Amino acid sequence: MLFICLFYVFYFLLFLLQVLGCDYAIRGEIVSHAQRLQHELQNKPGSHPFNEILYFNVGNPQSLGQKAITFFREVLVLCDHPPLLDKSETHALFSGDAIARARLILDVIPGRTTGGYSDTLGVKGLRDAVAAGIASRDGFPANPDDVFLTDGATPAVHIIMQLLIRSEKDGILCPIPQYPLYSASIFLHGGSLVPYYLDESTGWGLEIAELKKQLDDARSKGITVRALVVINPGNPTGQVLAKENQKQIVDFCKNEGLVLLADEVYQDNVYVDDKKFNSFKKIARSMGYEDEDLLLVSIHSVSKGYYGECGKRGGYMEVTGFGKEVKEQICKVAIVNLCFSNISGQILVSLVMNPPKVGDESYESFNAEKQGILSSLARRAKALEDAFNGLEGVTCNKAEGAMYLFPRLHLPQKAIEAAKAVDAAPDMFYARCLLDATGIVVVPGSGFGQVPGTWHIRCTILPQEEKIPGIICRLQAFHEAFMQQFRD
Amino acid sequence: MLFICLFYVFYFLLFLLQVLGCDYAIRGEIVSHAQRLQHELQNKPGSHPFNEILYFNVGNPQSLGQKAITFFREVLVLCDHPPLLDKSETHALFSGDAIARARLILDVIPGRTTGGYSDTLGVKGLRDAVAAGIASRDGFPANPDDVFLTDGATPAVHIIMQLLIRSEKDGILCPIPQYPLYSASIFLHGGSLVPYYLDESTGWGLEIAELKKQLDDARSKGITVRALVVINPGNPTGQVLAKENQKQIVDFCKNEGLVLLADEVYQDNVYVDDKKFNSFKKIARSMGYEDEDLLLVSIHSVSKGYYGECGKRGGYMEVTGFGKEVKEQICKVAIVNLCFSNISGQILVSLVMNPPKVGDESYESFNAEKQGILSSLARRAKALEDAFNGLEGVTCNKAEGAMYLFPRLHLPQKAIEAAKAVDAAPDMFYARCLLDATGIVVVPGSGFGQVPGTWHIRCTILPQEEKIPGIICRLQAFHEAFMQQFRD
Repeated sequence: MLFICLFYVFYFLLFLLQVLGCDYAIRGEIVSHAQRLQHELQNKPGSHPFNEILYFNVGNPQSLGQKAITFFREVLVLCDHPPLLDKSETHALFSGDAIARARLILDVIPGRTTGGYSDTLGVKGLRDAVAAGIASRDGFPANPDDVFLTDGATPAVHIIMQLLIRSEKDGILCPIPQYPLYSASIFLHGGSLVPYYLDESTGWGLEIAELKKQLDDARSKGITVRALVVINPGNPTGQVLAKENQKQIVDFCKNEGLVLLADEVYQDNVYVDDKKFNSFKKIARSMGYEDEDLLLVSIHSVSKGYYGECGKRGGYMEVTGFGKEVKEQICKVAIVNLCFSNISGQILVSLVMNPPKVGDESYESFNAEKQGILSSLARRAKALEDAFNGLEGVTCNKAEGAMYLFPRLHLPQKAIEAAKAVDAAPDMFYARCLLDATGIVVVPGSGFGQVPGTWHIRCTILPQEEKIPGIICRLQAFHEAFMQQFRD
Repeated sequence: MLFICLFYVFYFLLFLLQVLGCDYAIRGEIVSHAQRLQHELQNKPGSHPFNEILYFNVGNPQSLGQKAITFFREVLVLCDHPPLLDKSETHALFSGDAIARARLILDVIPGRTTGGYSDTLGVKGLRDAVAAGIASRDGFPANPDDVFLTDGATPAVHIIMQLLIRSEKDGILCPIPQYPLYSASIFLHGGSLVPYYLDESTGWGLEIAELKKQLDDARSKGITVRALVVINPGNPTGQVLAKENQKQIVDFCKNEGLVLLADEVYQDNVYVDDKKFNSFKKIARSMGYEDEDLLLVSIHSVSKGYYGECGKRGGYMEVTGFGKEVKEQICKVAIVNLCFSNISGQILVSLVMNPPKVGDESYESFNAEKQGILSSLARRAKALEDAFNGLEGVTCNKAEGAMYLFPRLHLPQKAIEAAKAVDAAPDMFYARCLLDATGIVVVPGSGFGQVPGTWHIRCTILPQEEKIPGIICRLQAFHEAFMQQFRD
């Protein structure tokens, strides 16, 4: 009987592998291989031509040494352990405005505890705070009833896809390259990904003509396109959209009746002086469009920005232009999925949207921490961009924002054939050779999608700044040897 | 165009309402009504015959005033803000063993931060700690590779259901009454719930003959039954299974080739001297069965027990008897769903499984807090059980464990007709009348399933102990008036 049982289990899993044909490159084959190498290095130091694995694959800043923002952590800790608020020693350990903020936050949480389930959509007072932060960012009002707090961006995307997708006849316009959360979620919910290509030659430009072409093409195949996903600043591509471009996108969605799903999780990561983050809501309102003119979902997370609090799982979605009934349905989907988001994540997203202001006791030290992180990220982005552009056969657009570079590899034919011989895509082959030679972990471009016949890697800008020059040297030496070996 | 768009959105939602035909009673209609009443009370004190809403609907202890366990919160806070570890004032505010534990925990977290993504299955060192805690609880070894850390019990259930269910031809044996997470998850993954009834007349007994009957019946209808869900201690029914009964269940699953999905989230909530919690793994091992003899998934959570940390979202599943490939697939499902569990929840579950021991600096105060909460819960359970049994036409089994009573209402025919007249199930009608008259929120039994023609309510034992006598008075007065009004 056990044998039958095991047989069934394996049969399921075969089935499952088909169903879950999608993969999640960022934690895929290369990362498993890296973990094996790390294990070997620990057990047998000197067994590889490097002494540490350098993770350039995930946007996970704190695991690479970035410090948490003190003010945010102080408030979290005081909310988690309220007895501290009444102790005299606490004033020696925490800033006065963190203590005051923690009291304000506890006042709005039922039971004054981070240990309770919240309302499905988040603690009301924290949604109020997030809405106030959005309004202050945009200069246009935000309604707390439009704000739903989530455990990072992921559940928000899943909920929206669950709402929009009925069958494979429902399509979602998605950028290529794209962060694979979107392809995975569309796949899981049984819909069709309708790709639109970002134009690498214009700095990963988003062209309306391309959107229109792909939309018409999908429609001609009987696909009902429901939504357009835009990631701004871009992941993995790092571009920051220009205002005029955003206006065109808003009009496109309005005219075509598409939900605009704006992934704005990198809103605090802009590194160039001539670009600025503008939320799609601000753009739409500045065009004179009101709530009812555009179906807009804006997604944010505490995992990125200068805070990089991936482990805390906090985020929000602001849902505008939909009726009350739709919001009730979002709530229902969340309830049925039992998505209860953790309270510390909810507090953190309220802080991220309402950081210390000029004049607050913590402001100067907060701002020094924030600017220190952002300016270091900008320097790291520039150094890596220059390094990639200095490599033979590699071209790399600027990382205007986000946390990634997405250089293109113009690989020699011999390398492509060598990849084929081991049944790997050429960018996967390159990434594996790079890892084996240097311990550097990057993600092959195929995990994000790319124009067929082009090859890329995604590389974060997150390893510690002092390590970057050494890493660049290793990268250069590897690349030179690789090209030498495979030069046509 | 916007009109077309809105039309589509509403069309989707109609579709969605069909797809999500399931409901989640614990946060359903009664709770929405209670929130409306609460709002009215705030805006117009005196507008109802009570001055507060008393939430007996959710197992959410801290929101009703239960204090968090100090040791657990101290460790969480020190891990969240490591600079505290180096400050002299910290020793005045935190216990020495909390400081030591926080250092140990930070040592096993990559980057020594709670701000990073962890491995998909949880931080390795914390999984080790949970496995050690399981081994110490059971007296049998536990393998860290079998332990996956999750954001509460919910994602664990969803992952297992996603693995087991291919179509509506796959069935899951579920207790009736049951915690509606199971029905919702089976529904969402497109499977069939195969009910087995707990026997109210023997204290919600779980009879093997009933399991066998329902299994055979399902098989005769072409359903492939994949798993048996057992909730022990029971939710909403509060029974604690006897060892002999558990042995029968283990043999039943083994012989029938079923996965045993053991919901053991109330393992720390047992209130009677003659019963003790035994994990199904311990039972199976004590019968001489090894890993490969039984497919067992044990689920636990930080939301219940004496800790009641619902807002932290922490939990684990221990998966034994499955091969390495199956565990890799669980990992893959988690990755594709992007279930990254928050680090504080992971730390907390490691603490819950390894609380202070005799001799540790915190032990006495920890134990006093723990015993204080558990003995108060036991007194509240007994007081409410007695109160229900004292009501005309109400019978209530003992809450041996968990956090609920599930009294049966023998309602007069006139009440049943009055319910019909307003298109409500009789228990829903009773719950609504109770809420309107007293502000007490309970969940109608229909949300959990019950033998057709019987009516129940689920009532937590969580409101503060000093409030219980007053609540009982209000309940008695209401019930008397209700019976008076509807007596046949």
